[in-house]
Amino acid sequence: MKGNIVVGQSGGPTAVINSSVAGVYAQAKKLGVNKVYGMVHGIEGFLEDQLCDLDEYLSDPAGIERLKRTPSAFLGSCRFKMPKIEGNEEIYEKIFSIMEKHDIECLFYCGGNDSMDTVKMLSDYAAAHGKSQRFVGVPKTIDNDLPITDHCPGYGSAAKYIATSMKEIIRDNESFGAKKPTIVIVEIMGRNAGWLTAAAALSKDDDCAGPDAIFLPERDFDMDKFMAKVKELAVSKSSVVIAVSEGVHDANGTYVCEMGREVAVDAFGHKQMSGTAAMLAEKIAAEIGYKTRAIEFSTLQRAAAHIASLTDINEAFQVGADAVKAAERGETAMMITLDRNGDDPYQCGTSAHDIHDIANVERKVPDEWITADGMGLNENYEKYARPLIMGELIPLFINGVPGHLVRK
Amino acid sequence: MKGNIVVGQSGGPTAVINSSVAGVYAQAKKLGVNKVYGMVHGIEGFLEDQLCDLDEYLSDPAGIERLKRTPSAFLGSCRFKMPKIEGNEEIYEKIFSIMEKHDIECLFYCGGNDSMDTVKMLSDYAAAHGKSQRFVGVPKTIDNDLPITDHCPGYGSAAKYIATSMKEIIRDNESFGAKKPTIVIVEIMGRNAGWLTAAAALSKDDDCAGPDAIFLPERDFDMDKFMAKVKELAVSKSSVVIAVSEGVHDANGTYVCEMGREVAVDAFGHKQMSGTAAMLAEKIAAEIGYKTRAIEFSTLQRAAAHIASLTDINEAFQVGADAVKAAERGETAMMITLDRNGDDPYQCGTSAHDIHDIANVERKVPDEWITADGMGLNENYEKYARPLIMGELIPLFINGVPGHLVRK
Repeated sequence: MKGNIVVGQSGGPTAVINSSVAGVYAQAKKLGVNKVYGMVHGIEGFLEDQLCDLDEYLSDPAGIERLKRTPSAFLGSCRFKMPKIEGNEEIYEKIFSIMEKHDIECLFYCGGNDSMDTVKMLSDYAAAHGKSQRFVGVPKTIDNDLPITDHCPGYGSAAKYIATSMKEIIRDNESFGAKKPTIVIVEIMGRNAGWLTAAAALSKDDDCAGPDAIFLPERDFDMDKFMAKVKELAVSKSSVVIAVSEGVHDANGTYVCEMGREVAVDAFGHKQMSGTAAMLAEKIAAEIGYKTRAIEFSTLQRAAAHIASLTDINEAFQVGADAVKAAERGETAMMITLDRNGDDPYQCGTSAHDIHDIANVERKVPDEWITADGMGLNENYEKYARPLIMGELIPLFINGVPGHLVRK
Repeated sequence: MKGNIVVGQSGGPTAVINSSVAGVYAQAKKLGVNKVYGMVHGIEGFLEDQLCDLDEYLSDPAGIERLKRTPSAFLGSCRFKMPKIEGNEEIYEKIFSIMEKHDIECLFYCGGNDSMDTVKMLSDYAAAHGKSQRFVGVPKTIDNDLPITDHCPGYGSAAKYIATSMKEIIRDNESFGAKKPTIVIVEIMGRNAGWLTAAAALSKDDDCAGPDAIFLPERDFDMDKFMAKVKELAVSKSSVVIAVSEGVHDANGTYVCEMGREVAVDAFGHKQMSGTAAMLAEKIAAEIGYKTRAIEFSTLQRAAAHIASLTDINEAFQVGADAVKAAERGETAMMITLDRNGDDPYQCGTSAHDIHDIANVERKVPDEWITADGMGLNENYEKYARPLIMGELIPLFINGVPGHLVRK
């Protein structure tokens, strides 16, 4: 590559999105790229010409190791939706003029569904206007809902955190051999797809029975069935722990967290989920009288780099590096996908796939991975997800707390 | 020691309470004790003669290593308050008869304030009725509110989890360079003492500014001052993260979590705290219109063995072992205390202290460790708490998730 490149981060952070930036940087430097710029706060900051030079942080290999252990978006993230091209050419031209100003030949964007739409729009604009710049998407989302790719970097680490924390919550709740059961409802992220909530099933092993029931948004939530299940479990168990997705909704599409209160909306028009576990716990306490506790993993599930999956960290690095290789080959309007070749031993390669098949498409947990009663996952999910949480990268503990790399 | 011994766990679990059981077992075996029994579900289970033989789990050193990495009460916990002796002699006699039945010479009880009351009552009964059995308390509480001892096993690990998670939450929240600030309120356990909430301050280091304000129950909560502080912070910062104790209350003693709703009461008559962060986040959103998020660490802060402090694990083991040594010397009606000898390097020994000075006394964060504005901790707290979170014990990862030791 003759020109410079830029890499940006967009959407909800993950524990490993920075490993992808490290991968982009390391591969670009191998190829002799002069400047590897970082967008400060994604395309929104780029529009204001906010760039940093990654040599400042990553030319020392220790910087790369520290970045791999740093959660959230090192470069800063944004939630910026590219407007439709017609009538908004000014914004597009501005982006290309900033690219030209810094001699940027390729733009790499790490993100999920909304961010891949940005890659699509920019590459569409380039194609329509005879621009030579190239655009490659780097998959990233704890939600694991991008299509085509076997899984998404970020998911494995979130799943490892969820499985570990779920096990610790179960261990805690079962310590009291109470005559009266305690019902714990754990709320897990995932607006439309149940991938993250499914990860609660990975807490099951020889030393842990796992959650007693798992409710995904892939199945309509039936309040009567839910309450009946709680009662049934509480007859035989003093500790009941149930995982629910923040996005569970009834057959009419009404979210459980909306039942009885107003819900705010974000910049993309998505409803702000939260309060599902609290609502259910209060209902159980009020109607059956059991002691309850509502727990939300909240942003910890996407930021807990201290228990990230090494497989995930390595794959996040790999898709970053392979995005640079794809651009080097002259490809554009692509996203790097992870392509699984085997489960045992787990093997996974990558390829580049047309962004038009990916942007704005959401992939859900397959029907055939959900148990017949709709309240659990079967061995197909286990086979799929277990390899993604394997391995650890010990944090760099400084003064007893994991150390991170931060922008000056 | 000629007879057998028994060890029990009581009250809220911690990440290291099992290390104390390991310490009791290891030291007793060194002294040639025949049987080391575990009470299944504390004194409540003991009253029903529910015992296990710890040889079954711990005679293999690998069992001890696994137990050290297992959170929550391996033996099962209970919340059982010993009734006053007068009129309840039957219960006391039953306990002594079960001890005699199993030739139990010493009883070791791991717990906090309420559990130390059990040690006091049993040793008082023994003294009054000429019984020879001995009773030694092993300190355990994430709340860190036992008097006399410099600190309590369980606190360091909870503090390390809180500092680590707080840093990850701050990292996550600051990733969006939003024009409109996002206010995160993090609720931390501690009904009357702010020790756990104070640990949020340990997230501060060269790479993290720490929380923007910390509200402890040691200071009366003033809603107007709180809202003014939020507004002040939001003027200059797009990310505001505030730590609040679940036990914050106004000058009249009304808990913030009680403002506007009913609160349940547990077996000891303690109010069930929760909902403080949610209440404050809703109030900020409604009155100032900022985007807010409420996070509760909930039971994770006492169960997160995967990020336990090695210092804490070792000290928990030590107080267990030293309780056995004290009993071997013939002592009874004692609790083992941790006695700090130096901060830098940190040095800590143990001694045995009269249980009557300890039971039912609560220690709070000293006034002189709280900043003048009442919204933070100063360097005195840092000096005290930092050594307690140092060091790590890598979990035994099995299938990607920390493995635990469980009773059959």
